[in-house]
Amino acid sequence: MNGTKPDYAFNERITLQHVGRAKIHNSGSANLSYGFPAPELLPIEDINQAAAAALVRGNVDALHYTGGKGPELVRKWTLQRLRKFGIEADEDSYLAVYGANQGIELAAQVLLNPGETVWTEASTYFNALHMFRHAGARIEGLPVDRDGLDIDRVESALKQAVQSGGALPKFIYVMPNFQNPTGAAMPLERRRRLAGLAKEYNIFILEDDAYGELRFEGANLPSVYSFAPDRVIYLGTFSKTLGPGLRLGSVIAPNEVIRRMRCLTLDSPPSPVIQEILGWLLHHYDYDAQIKRLTSLYRARRDAMTEAVRSELGEAAAYTQPEGGFFLWLAFPQGTDAERLHRLSEDRGVSFVPGSPFYAAGGNPPFIRLCFSYCGEAEIKRGVKRLGEAYRDYLNKL
Amino acid sequence: MNGTKPDYAFNERITLQHVGRAKIHNSGSANLSYGFPAPELLPIEDINQAAAAALVRGNVDALHYTGGKGPELVRKWTLQRLRKFGIEADEDSYLAVYGANQGIELAAQVLLNPGETVWTEASTYFNALHMFRHAGARIEGLPVDRDGLDIDRVESALKQAVQSGGALPKFIYVMPNFQNPTGAAMPLERRRRLAGLAKEYNIFILEDDAYGELRFEGANLPSVYSFAPDRVIYLGTFSKTLGPGLRLGSVIAPNEVIRRMRCLTLDSPPSPVIQEILGWLLHHYDYDAQIKRLTSLYRARRDAMTEAVRSELGEAAAYTQPEGGFFLWLAFPQGTDAERLHRLSEDRGVSFVPGSPFYAAGGNPPFIRLCFSYCGEAEIKRGVKRLGEAYRDYLNKL
Repeated sequence: MNGTKPDYAFNERITLQHVGRAKIHNSGSANLSYGFPAPELLPIEDINQAAAAALVRGNVDALHYTGGKGPELVRKWTLQRLRKFGIEADEDSYLAVYGANQGIELAAQVLLNPGETVWTEASTYFNALHMFRHAGARIEGLPVDRDGLDIDRVESALKQAVQSGGALPKFIYVMPNFQNPTGAAMPLERRRRLAGLAKEYNIFILEDDAYGELRFEGANLPSVYSFAPDRVIYLGTFSKTLGPGLRLGSVIAPNEVIRRMRCLTLDSPPSPVIQEILGWLLHHYDYDAQIKRLTSLYRARRDAMTEAVRSELGEAAAYTQPEGGFFLWLAFPQGTDAERLHRLSEDRGVSFVPGSPFYAAGGNPPFIRLCFSYCGEAEIKRGVKRLGEAYRDYLNKL
Repeated sequence: MNGTKPDYAFNERITLQHVGRAKIHNSGSANLSYGFPAPELLPIEDINQAAAAALVRGNVDALHYTGGKGPELVRKWTLQRLRKFGIEADEDSYLAVYGANQGIELAAQVLLNPGETVWTEASTYFNALHMFRHAGARIEGLPVDRDGLDIDRVESALKQAVQSGGALPKFIYVMPNFQNPTGAAMPLERRRRLAGLAKEYNIFILEDDAYGELRFEGANLPSVYSFAPDRVIYLGTFSKTLGPGLRLGSVIAPNEVIRRMRCLTLDSPPSPVIQEILGWLLHHYDYDAQIKRLTSLYRARRDAMTEAVRSELGEAAAYTQPEGGFFLWLAFPQGTDAERLHRLSEDRGVSFVPGSPFYAAGGNPPFIRLCFSYCGEAEIKRGVKRLGEAYRDYLNKL
């Protein structure tokens, strides 16, 4: 109660760790850190036309809280589209959200009481870890192999928790398609088994399918949701296919979950204006052709990146070839100081994300994530070349 | 662990109370419940043009996570505009949000640990009450009179809390301009005193200024923020002037608050595409002329409504003439069953919001909120006429 700067107690769960996105470096550098789609394939002209058609006086409700025709158009399109992944859901199971991120946040808030436990893949999407922490969760990571989450380990951990009277997870967060950061995809049988475990142990699965549309090879697989619609919260997004700046995605979940999410969002739909634009676009647009453009480009970029990694790093960096998505996950020999390698690489003008933020436990694991979606092949090759130089530099200075 | 529908424990703080917005009734009814701007004054043609200019290949970053030029244009415009309310802030004190609602939610999450106390005006904005509950707050209401929050009562309550060792509020939520629902505006001296109490007792003020631009009469007053920038979180929005469907507003707050809010939002700006459109619009648009159009129309509608209330309800409904905003708050004689009056009115085809949701304690207080912004004068008159009939019906059936 004096004039000095007061000491004020904020919410204890909010830590000021860095969660910002990488800034755009100078144009000479190679940016392999961004989880961004390729700018040249973002359909801004189509979105421009859709805005011109949708934002008209006859649809002025676009500017009201609940929107005009757009939200229903987006919902119908999405529910139809998701059949591709074995999802049969009605409007009571659907909620539009500001991208998959808001879906993660709402799921965490709806499901978790502080102190309860979430299981994730280790490694996993770092922003999901932040959101689970904000919700007061205890986070435990379970191992991922070349086929994604190791379901044997999930099953034994669940059994052990029951036997020892330990905490079952409130939900398991998983990315079955082209996991961020490892790029792994779960085979059909693992999806089915995971769904079965959710039913058996009465837990939820939070299935983040941000990258599911971006399969370069092989057949699309049914979602985990398709095997246990009562036990799975499925997240989709337009961020990877039309542009993250739209901030629009969807949740498909049991109605008891959706109702609670609606309550948290005050029943206010996200960005009605964006939904008007997208509603018009989706019904006048060849989305499959867009997916084909994206997957063709990303497949070529993945190939350019893996080829460069083989030639620049050889046996030093192991990886599993991702069948889709944005990312290549490199495993360096055990004991490699990835943070140091990161600094040496940045000095040479190549950016990526070292392994640490993808683990709840942090540490300095010998992994790095490279993104192949954002940069052209020349920049990818230049970046990996510099990474190779940085790695040799790192070895020389050991 | 059997096949029956599982019993699952959700977050205990999320209650399934109705928070939805009123649905649009049949066209013959009078809708005085919506806190909506007048559709005929929403500048959809200008927004259409702005979208055409802003969503172009040269600004394709509009579709990326962090946006293109838009967020900076909106920020600069907003910081300049807010000088009108005595706010001198720099970019470290600014955060773009999905409307004032997200500002309330972030403030609650940043400031509150579960079980801590928030003071609000009683009555207050119902969605704020929901968000405080979701954050685990204990809510106490302090009385509002014709000049808004009663600062004498705030001061004595703070003194008493200190003397008795009771809980000081983590923050006080207040709408100094044309409060929702009462329409009251706080005079200059109350603002200054409230700011002084925040400093003296080391608490925050959450100043929701959703309606501040919509003053029909009298001079604009400085914000509470202007008297205590270290102790106030100020919320503004484009919802009442350009359209709620844009979902864009701003927070002005001490940097230590803003940094925590950025952390919670994963440093991802709201709706980059919307910010591109608005950034372009705001720099090519006569915003003051829009404000003049809005305040002229709303002043006339307020007058039509108060005149109708005087002639249809006479002494039965007391009110303070609001000098701005969207709402007229009617006080019926003590003991009036506002819920019953509400049902009788809806049967006659007029909708409004009864007093109960505006109080943390609920109950059935003898108040109703009428909205004059959304409907034309003819509908306002028809609606108040039906309300008068419903009230006489209510009295006859006592």
